[in-house]
Amino acid sequence: MVETTYTVSGMTCGHCASAVEKELKTIESVEAVAVDVESGNVTVSSAQPLEIAAVRAAIDEAGYTLQDS
Amino acid sequence: MVETTYTVSGMTCGHCASAVEKELKTIESVEAVAVDVESGNVTVSSAQPLEIAAVRAAIDEAGYTLQDS
Repeated sequence: MVETTYTVSGMTCGHCASAVEKELKTIESVEAVAVDVESGNVTVSSAQPLEIAAVRAAIDEAGYTLQDS
Repeated sequence: MVETTYTVSGMTCGHCASAVEKELKTIESVEAVAVDVESGNVTVSSAQPLEIAAVRAAIDEAGYTLQDS
């Protein structure tokens, strides 16, 4: 199991969190997603390390932006 | 046709606007709803004047609060 925390900008409410969570869960091997709207921290648990491009695409699809670390 | 503008607090994004719009449209005689998230203004067009209690209940159901004018 791999756990990675990303920072996502633009989320303002629980609906935003749900949208991001839903899209991230469409990535193969993602098992759990935890979102903290206030900080923008999104922690993703997955069976395998994730391709950052896939994570970025899912967050874009939800309508938000992955912040570069 | 009656058009009334209410002020709703707590909306932060387009998802919030959609939630409020969806609940208000369940009220009989409501024909159109326009939401401005930034100002909190929600303009409702209806065939008949609306009961304020029904409007308040719909906004509550969506998870937001009708501000008293």
